[in-house]
Amino acid sequence: MKAVVYEHPFDVAVKEVEDPRIQHPNDVLVRVTSTAICGSDLHMYEGRTAAQPGIVFGHENLGVIEEIGSGVTSLKPGDRVVMPFNVACGFCKNCLAGFTGFCLTVNPGFAGGAYGYVAMGPYTGGQAEHLRVPYADFNCLKLPPGDEWETDFVLLADIFPTGYHGCELAKVSPGESVAVYGAGPVGLMAAYSALLRGASKVFVVDRVPERLAKAEEIGAIPIDFTQADPAEQIREQTDGEGTDKGVDAVGYQAHSRDASHEEPAVVLNTLIMTVRPTGMLGVPGLYVPSDPGAPDEHAKQGQLLVSIGKMFEKGQRMGTGQCNVKLYNRQLRDLIIAGRAKPSFVVSHELPLDQAPMAYDKFDKRIEGFTKVVLHPTLAA
Amino acid sequence: MKAVVYEHPFDVAVKEVEDPRIQHPNDVLVRVTSTAICGSDLHMYEGRTAAQPGIVFGHENLGVIEEIGSGVTSLKPGDRVVMPFNVACGFCKNCLAGFTGFCLTVNPGFAGGAYGYVAMGPYTGGQAEHLRVPYADFNCLKLPPGDEWETDFVLLADIFPTGYHGCELAKVSPGESVAVYGAGPVGLMAAYSALLRGASKVFVVDRVPERLAKAEEIGAIPIDFTQADPAEQIREQTDGEGTDKGVDAVGYQAHSRDASHEEPAVVLNTLIMTVRPTGMLGVPGLYVPSDPGAPDEHAKQGQLLVSIGKMFEKGQRMGTGQCNVKLYNRQLRDLIIAGRAKPSFVVSHELPLDQAPMAYDKFDKRIEGFTKVVLHPTLAA
Amino acid sequence: MKAVVYEHPFDVAVKEVEDPRIQHPNDVLVRVTSTAICGSDLHMYEGRTAAQPGIVFGHENLGVIEEIGSGVTSLKPGDRVVMPFNVACGFCKNCLAGFTGFCLTVNPGFAGGAYGYVAMGPYTGGQAEHLRVPYADFNCLKLPPGDEWETDFVLLADIFPTGYHGCELAKVSPGESVAVYGAGPVGLMAAYSALLRGASKVFVVDRVPERLAKAEEIGAIPIDFTQADPAEQIREQTDGEGTDKGVDAVGYQAHSRDASHEEPAVVLNTLIMTVRPTGMLGVPGLYVPSDPGAPDEHAKQGQLLVSIGKMFEKGQRMGTGQCNVKLYNRQLRDLIIAGRAKPSFVVSHELPLDQAPMAYDKFDKRIEGFTKVVLHPTLAA
Amino acid sequence: MKAVVYEHPFDVAVKEVEDPRIQHPNDVLVRVTSTAICGSDLHMYEGRTAAQPGIVFGHENLGVIEEIGSGVTSLKPGDRVVMPFNVACGFCKNCLAGFTGFCLTVNPGFAGGAYGYVAMGPYTGGQAEHLRVPYADFNCLKLPPGDEWETDFVLLADIFPTGYHGCELAKVSPGESVAVYGAGPVGLMAAYSALLRGASKVFVVDRVPERLAKAEEIGAIPIDFTQADPAEQIREQTDGEGTDKGVDAVGYQAHSRDASHEEPAVVLNTLIMTVRPTGMLGVPGLYVPSDPGAPDEHAKQGQLLVSIGKMFEKGQRMGTGQCNVKLYNRQLRDLIIAGRAKPSFVVSHELPLDQAPMAYDKFDKRIEGFTKVVLHPTLAA
Repeated sequence: MKAVVYEHPFDVAVKEVEDPRIQHPNDVLVRVTSTAICGSDLHMYEGRTAAQPGIVFGHENLGVIEEIGSGVTSLKPGDRVVMPFNVACGFCKNCLAGFTGFCLTVNPGFAGGAYGYVAMGPYTGGQAEHLRVPYADFNCLKLPPGDEWETDFVLLADIFPTGYHGCELAKVSPGESVAVYGAGPVGLMAAYSALLRGASKVFVVDRVPERLAKAEEIGAIPIDFTQADPAEQIREQTDGEGTDKGVDAVGYQAHSRDASHEEPAVVLNTLIMTVRPTGMLGVPGLYVPSDPGAPDEHAKQGQLLVSIGKMFEKGQRMGTGQCNVKLYNRQLRDLIIAGRAKPSFVVSHELPLDQAPMAYDKFDKRIEGFTKVVLHPTLAA
Repeated sequence: MKAVVYEHPFDVAVKEVEDPRIQHPNDVLVRVTSTAICGSDLHMYEGRTAAQPGIVFGHENLGVIEEIGSGVTSLKPGDRVVMPFNVACGFCKNCLAGFTGFCLTVNPGFAGGAYGYVAMGPYTGGQAEHLRVPYADFNCLKLPPGDEWETDFVLLADIFPTGYHGCELAKVSPGESVAVYGAGPVGLMAAYSALLRGASKVFVVDRVPERLAKAEEIGAIPIDFTQADPAEQIREQTDGEGTDKGVDAVGYQAHSRDASHEEPAVVLNTLIMTVRPTGMLGVPGLYVPSDPGAPDEHAKQGQLLVSIGKMFEKGQRMGTGQCNVKLYNRQLRDLIIAGRAKPSFVVSHELPLDQAPMAYDKFDKRIEGFTKVVLHPTLAA
Repeated sequence: MKAVVYEHPFDVAVKEVEDPRIQHPNDVLVRVTSTAICGSDLHMYEGRTAAQPGIVFGHENLGVIEEIGSGVTSLKPGDRVVMPFNVACGFCKNCLAGFTGFCLTVNPGFAGGAYGYVAMGPYTGGQAEHLRVPYADFNCLKLPPGDEWETDFVLLADIFPTGYHGCELAKVSPGESVAVYGAGPVGLMAAYSALLRGASKVFVVDRVPERLAKAEEIGAIPIDFTQADPAEQIREQTDGEGTDKGVDAVGYQAHSRDASHEEPAVVLNTLIMTVRPTGMLGVPGLYVPSDPGAPDEHAKQGQLLVSIGKMFEKGQRMGTGQCNVKLYNRQLRDLIIAGRAKPSFVVSHELPLDQAPMAYDKFDKRIEGFTKVVLHPTLAA
Repeated sequence: MKAVVYEHPFDVAVKEVEDPRIQHPNDVLVRVTSTAICGSDLHMYEGRTAAQPGIVFGHENLGVIEEIGSGVTSLKPGDRVVMPFNVACGFCKNCLAGFTGFCLTVNPGFAGGAYGYVAMGPYTGGQAEHLRVPYADFNCLKLPPGDEWETDFVLLADIFPTGYHGCELAKVSPGESVAVYGAGPVGLMAAYSALLRGASKVFVVDRVPERLAKAEEIGAIPIDFTQADPAEQIREQTDGEGTDKGVDAVGYQAHSRDASHEEPAVVLNTLIMTVRPTGMLGVPGLYVPSDPGAPDEHAKQGQLLVSIGKMFEKGQRMGTGQCNVKLYNRQLRDLIIAGRAKPSFVVSHELPLDQAPMAYDKFDKRIEGFTKVVLHPTLAA
């Protein structure tokens, strides 16, 4: 089959690779109809990880089941399904507690697995014509047949739940004010989720006018941090108090306000200043324990200068970690079907699989409006 | 009346000061029968804060009501009461949400007030013969008449709830394993609270044999961090997993494992290593946003090198901040009365008020077993 | 001053009564600008309670502070405020836990107090020119000055929070389906709240076309129970499952489906059938422990034939009781100010105080569209 | 193999039946070492259900794995395991939400399955030498090898978690007072769990002196309801307030206080009177939607006269339904291993399988101290 294969830094190719096959009674094979490129794919693409040439990318996958293993109960060929980016077993201690992003089974020695991602287990990515899904009864979310909402549904694999997860970590509740740092796809999904959850005021902080315009379109209040300290701007719009909650949708590759250099903790520390005493911070990320390309020795080991004294004085609470997609994907699917959520507004391009190399290049360079790309392996090139 | 007055670093005196009086219809006056010295009093005593000479110390206070203001409803002279160290109004946004440690009314410009503490508002301390209690209906917890459980009850003002708060921030639940760093009074109260909440295994980490022995007596598992990396010791006793939850009862004055120097983030970072993926950290503290005596420029401003990358990878959540005593003091009182909790095991000395200077001196030097001192202003010197 | 006074069954008059005055340091006096008539006022109006002639009605009150007691801290003359229908002290065990609808202080011997309501304590109602508010720092919610959102804000006293309370009791969460029985003001507020909280599908069950049309306007799905068994209708629209959650906004005065007679448990039992296994039921009510006008001996004592066997088999949970308005009123106010909620769509009439007798008459008869009346004592008759 | 087979009302026999075999890749076979007789087995034994002759009883099962299906991941022959009485798939909507007692997969057309129980699906009981366990990775809880804690661990299949579930439904928290109705095995486990969760005062209500003595032994306060109205007795011991929480561990086969006749709602209604306003009721039950042997027509259909008016006035919340064992069994296992829980104090008899007929007879007659029987199929008769 054809698949998007990593060749070397800044280079992917669409190549023939071996077809996946059922390896275990609980596997299914899926014919991929939509698969999105994620900002975290760029970490590998840029060579900033230990990903080796030959890896097939793709952890945001939707398609139609072609074949099922002998142990599969709830699925049959022809079912349309979307898979969380997390691969999870469904029966370990963490999965049982809902923490499917930290499955103890699928990637021995580590808590958590994913498709097509370095160090996340032996699961080939889905930027390809076909995909093997392990523990399929657990990992497949069924969708209505046909192709309606295709571009909304593919976002259920990662970024819509991940944005929502930021709100869940911060326990965003009706009537609250929220500050979201970052208006990339995850930040926009976090702001959108905050509004779905009944937040009264949602501020979105970024520097890019197009992104801020998008935030405003969905009902959020844009804050351009190049104009003035964003914590200060938000304080002024919240009677001097700061917001009830905050979401850091930027993570460790944050840049200084003047954009001159990486300043990995700047967003986290500004968030601490932005949120009022007793507030909560949701940090869907991303922060990493090892970052060889970081600006200093501590940051290389994932240690950052955090304003822990201020955080403590304010009695803030913070939740971190990658999203447990299964905690939210069914509910968000139902909002899409009911016509109450339409997350595809973040998708900028839909392309055939063959155009993946071009899409990676432009997405990585943040040019020509490439903000969120969905590939359709079933589309003629 | 007589009161413990701060003179200058390492020097307090018992002196005559002006008697408190009713200043507002919601005030009461209390004749203090028990008032404890807190580890945080030592911060002021050592001159490591902006506390000015003349301040009367004492935020852990219990006594009998002598006089009530015209607006007081639920109290009358003769009632025995214990007061949270937090002074709170009961009607601001934070108090309504249960965050009485972050009251917006009692200390304008700041979230939170306390008795006898620098920068915590104009509330004279209770290491004295009498105490004025504002918003008394809200701030007084009624106790059974008499003097039974006196030494247990006085701990309801701060350290028992504060230890419990560490468990609440970490949401310690029945059957879970917990690591508590620090076996001082707050750490012991945290371990004791974890056991009351039904934890299966509670590890207590310290270097002082007497403290570790105390931990063992109450049913916890002592971990001597001078013997080996405590995270490693605990991992070995939890099937290689680490604990479900953790409490940092040490805070920013932590020392390096060899005790040679202050290393403000060492406990927090070791806790991150100790707790397993998906776990929660309760940080009752203390961390401060300004610490002129800190070992480096960042620490002076409350910024510490935190292993945020590892924390994120593990998907840990963290709660911080001083205790909201009123959230727990009634329930803990009822456990004492029912004979199911007896926190006074941490009290090492009960002394008349006049011996406060000696007690401060020995407590500060950590000598002669002075670990927790309760002063009784009603006791003949 | 002028006030709406109960004379005898089906008769109220606007009469001169004594002006309220400050009775306690924590009181304030409010000049009432808006005060709504509630469905529960009709219970008294119809003579179905022990209410005695002379009682001044009105527990949904908004106005401007005229005078404050000597113990009041956070309020001053001129402040615009809305009061929860519950009178609460703020410091008893129940108030501290957020259960301000069950205050143990304000109505000795009973849990809960209210303005202008039989057996709810000595608090004169606000369908009058002036109102005394006890424990004012606790019971007044401040509003922006002026008269903007006046008709939305007055609904913060009772029905908007009460509808929201139904959703809170049922823990309505994003993506869930909800069935609301009753499309009167509280039912509509419950449906509206469910949508604000992110429900995917909200069904509203009633028989009156105008009410069902209102439900549809706000985005809910109307279910006319005269057409077919509503549980069955809803099951068909939820893939045969039933809804995740349900709200009973009808209570004990429910009628049989053919409207021929009172059948006090019919809504509760139909709700049990409507909600799927593991679901939750929010019952903002109203059910009463004594109902002399009830159709049978058991119902007279508040005992109804409940399908507890089916409820148990389904593992449903149920929350009951009158609303604790303070748990929600600030957040809902902020949604109104932010333009994200506009509950005044339920208000059918705004009238001067003098027209109260006519309004009671028509509201009681459910004629001429009298579904929710707001009285403005400041309006010329 | 040998198994306990239902013959006709009041008659079971130990007979040869067909050996179970692997039917699905996710099955395992277990050699049963301990299997307990449950009070709910008596419903079938007494002929009060639709159970047909030939059914093998037994839903409280512990043993050692003998054979695994080709899809099983986490288990191997020789593993010692205990199974929840609920059979569950692990991937349906209800299982994902933790409601494994309401699995939508294992018993089509109904929410919930179990071993050896009428209408709970095609799962042969474990009062036998061998047992087939479906979805084994999900349904088996691993235990330490050997035979230590055997009698404690077998209670993890049902009654220890079920008692705990009563507390969870009532959200019993540290410092609270709790009333448990019924001192049978489940009631004692509920009281024991309440104490493990940190309750201050736990009342246990029953009529049988031996049972009340057992309650007192574990630290609860016995209330003999034959002496006086139990709600009144408890009110006197709670300062006139009633308890914070309550658990109904009796269910629909409750008898009138004078024991003269069945009065199905008497415990539920007395519980409503016992628990204070704002309290919560946990009802692990059992109530059934169809009870042909009930005293009246309504009760036959599971409709009981419930004091819903009083419940509403008090604002109580109620949780019902059979236990989702997997929510608690791992944590309770860890308390047993840590030596902090020892539930086997409720076990009265341990017998070989052959003595099941005698044990059923005496347990049903409540004679000779037969209160909780564990059968060991591996024990020589």
